[in-house]
Amino acid sequence: MTHLDHPAPARGHSTAPTGNMGRTMSPSSAPDPVRPVVLLTDFGPGSPYVGQMELAVAKVAPRAHIFHLAHDLPPQNIRAAALVAVTSRPLLPEGAVLCIVVDPGVGTDRAIVAGPMPDGRLAVVPDNGLAAALDVNPAFVVENRDLMAKEISTTFHGRDVFAPVAAHLATGADPASVGPRRPTAELTALAIPLRSEARGGEILFCDHYGNLITNLRANRADPAETLRVRDIELPRVRTYGDAPEGSLVVVEGSFGNLEIAEVGGNAASSMGVGAGTPVTRVPGR
Amino acid sequence: MTHLDHPAPARGHSTAPTGNMGRTMSPSSAPDPVRPVVLLTDFGPGSPYVGQMELAVAKVAPRAHIFHLAHDLPPQNIRAAALVAVTSRPLLPEGAVLCIVVDPGVGTDRAIVAGPMPDGRLAVVPDNGLAAALDVNPAFVVENRDLMAKEISTTFHGRDVFAPVAAHLATGADPASVGPRRPTAELTALAIPLRSEARGGEILFCDHYGNLITNLRANRADPAETLRVRDIELPRVRTYGDAPEGSLVVVEGSFGNLEIAEVGGNAASSMGVGAGTPVTRVPGR
Amino acid sequence: MTHLDHPAPARGHSTAPTGNMGRTMSPSSAPDPVRPVVLLTDFGPGSPYVGQMELAVAKVAPRAHIFHLAHDLPPQNIRAAALVAVTSRPLLPEGAVLCIVVDPGVGTDRAIVAGPMPDGRLAVVPDNGLAAALDVNPAFVVENRDLMAKEISTTFHGRDVFAPVAAHLATGADPASVGPRRPTAELTALAIPLRSEARGGEILFCDHYGNLITNLRANRADPAETLRVRDIELPRVRTYGDAPEGSLVVVEGSFGNLEIAEVGGNAASSMGVGAGTPVTRVPGR
Repeated sequence: MTHLDHPAPARGHSTAPTGNMGRTMSPSSAPDPVRPVVLLTDFGPGSPYVGQMELAVAKVAPRAHIFHLAHDLPPQNIRAAALVAVTSRPLLPEGAVLCIVVDPGVGTDRAIVAGPMPDGRLAVVPDNGLAAALDVNPAFVVENRDLMAKEISTTFHGRDVFAPVAAHLATGADPASVGPRRPTAELTALAIPLRSEARGGEILFCDHYGNLITNLRANRADPAETLRVRDIELPRVRTYGDAPEGSLVVVEGSFGNLEIAEVGGNAASSMGVGAGTPVTRVPGR
Repeated sequence: MTHLDHPAPARGHSTAPTGNMGRTMSPSSAPDPVRPVVLLTDFGPGSPYVGQMELAVAKVAPRAHIFHLAHDLPPQNIRAAALVAVTSRPLLPEGAVLCIVVDPGVGTDRAIVAGPMPDGRLAVVPDNGLAAALDVNPAFVVENRDLMAKEISTTFHGRDVFAPVAAHLATGADPASVGPRRPTAELTALAIPLRSEARGGEILFCDHYGNLITNLRANRADPAETLRVRDIELPRVRTYGDAPEGSLVVVEGSFGNLEIAEVGGNAASSMGVGAGTPVTRVPGR
Repeated sequence: MTHLDHPAPARGHSTAPTGNMGRTMSPSSAPDPVRPVVLLTDFGPGSPYVGQMELAVAKVAPRAHIFHLAHDLPPQNIRAAALVAVTSRPLLPEGAVLCIVVDPGVGTDRAIVAGPMPDGRLAVVPDNGLAAALDVNPAFVVENRDLMAKEISTTFHGRDVFAPVAAHLATGADPASVGPRRPTAELTALAIPLRSEARGGEILFCDHYGNLITNLRANRADPAETLRVRDIELPRVRTYGDAPEGSLVVVEGSFGNLEIAEVGGNAASSMGVGAGTPVTRVPGR
């Protein structure tokens, strides 16, 4: 028996007390519904950590549909995870359990919390800014060992805690069964806003194309606004095809924020900037 | 209501007129069949763009099986996408909807087209060489807003157009319902052949091992033919194990074309070449 | 008809003789059970090789649930694959078929073997150390052409041999039907132990965070033991949060072995070491 073995209760049965808090699926809509589980991590695509988490979910909830929202987030970048999670929420299946493991505090006394988001979907996330960004309310601190793997490593709570807890929620466990409630006001806040309307902000992350996603929400009342990065002011365009190949431009990206792109190229490489670089909004003239 | 919300019609119901054009699954073979959806993009493995596309398909077609053909294609490399798509076609499930987003023209007036391929499977692809390479016929230009997300970004049509259209086709919408027919002769052609029998060609892309896949089809009548790259003529072998570690060799790769590999190493790194580098076929002697 | 076409027998029917050897699922537990298939490769996440393998499994076993254990393993690193496979085994679904393609010998006379592991799950793996590491017993050499693709490439047995064979096992084929038995004593052994209790060992691979996973099993009786790499002796901590940002530390990693990590950073980049670098265990004092 190793620390990789999870309890695998009969489906629909849980050692935890069950209730209906946060349930969005009517018992009459389908026999024995199982919530989909959506995973979002910084484990790296195709890594064994992603595979082990998926297997750990399936161990407890073999019939849950598992989606992968993203796994290529920059390591330990809570802000990038929060932006992706918040802006993707409307796309999640009804009743989904969103399970995020971007967790630089693994093994310390940072809490993991679970609970409903305002749209009725559930979240299992570290209390490191993610729970607050997703408006988890009420939030319950994950402490119930019956919902975790039998043996818990100090370095991989994704597999040993997050995955089995998310899977138990998927099969009907009540969020309140995971542990004591933590008042919303006590949840850790994100250090910076994700979709800021302020003048100054920063680059949150860089995607596969080398596009640089900022935390500044595009101002739709000023479609000519642009960005200054270091000493360069970049021209604003509607979409990539509106400027010649090789141009550095600013667009309203698919997350709704301002993004820096190089047409037909890689802006991150060309500019030598990345997560954390300050940017300044420049109103259109 | 954000631009991420998609219409989610009851399954089997579509606001578009439906018919049987291109249907390969008999209504009697199973109740309420849903076509599998196969995604092929250059979004980067594990990226939130892949995750959002998968969620956008599931929003419209929650019961569709979703396959991922590849997501690590070199950014905006239409030729690489075409080779992977064309050579993988025999492996696609019967009746699948192949949805390709390698789309440097996103947001410009390039068209997206949908329609059946010769084998009866369906395709939803940009008209940038991919539709012609896949012999989509008849091809219909995607214009029907009822089949798209409610709000459409200028930078991410994969999520807002391709995914919901593919999902509507998966649940039974007729390809003709997406928009007006575009004559086959007017589809954009690929700039170079994918499986050329000519003497000169080029490297299409580099895989995870550093193997360099060309657009030159291996000539099975001349199993000794080889390649010249820059000033180097590389020896031809049947498979990697036929030459010593560290050798640069040419093999018939798994796409059926000539490939350059370093035995036990990374040819792309060792040679410093990549997509676009010219290669010349040298007959065996 | 290309070499990508696979035979697609009616489900539950195989041209191979069938039996019950190695079956772990009772016929009475569910009608027409299909084993899940778990893929583990070094193809690179999101690569077309992963996609083609998944499609090749689905061609033969359309109802098999397919899991992806990992695809980002360092190319041709049999030891890394073995560690991931052995330590993940308890998480695999009951009755799963584990299919590993880390296969530097593809196209040579190295054998592919199939057979049950001690827990009753099945494996389809190269006989390059993986079969021995997983205790496949009895092991059968894959030779039955009826279970493979119609045409078999010299460079991609994952798609043409491993995937269809795994899928046939998933739908009920007997492992003995794949070919002749190879005595366990004749299976190729791994060159080094995976979870060694010796003093000296080596780095097996580097993960997405830059953590360096060794082949030295953490000694739980000596929780203060540490590691020497080159001339540096690294301090031992319980988890990442127990040392200041930027520290290089040793932890018991999630595979149960000693790992080198940089707190909040990337140890592989900072130290300039990787797979194969020797490490020496230093007892705690």
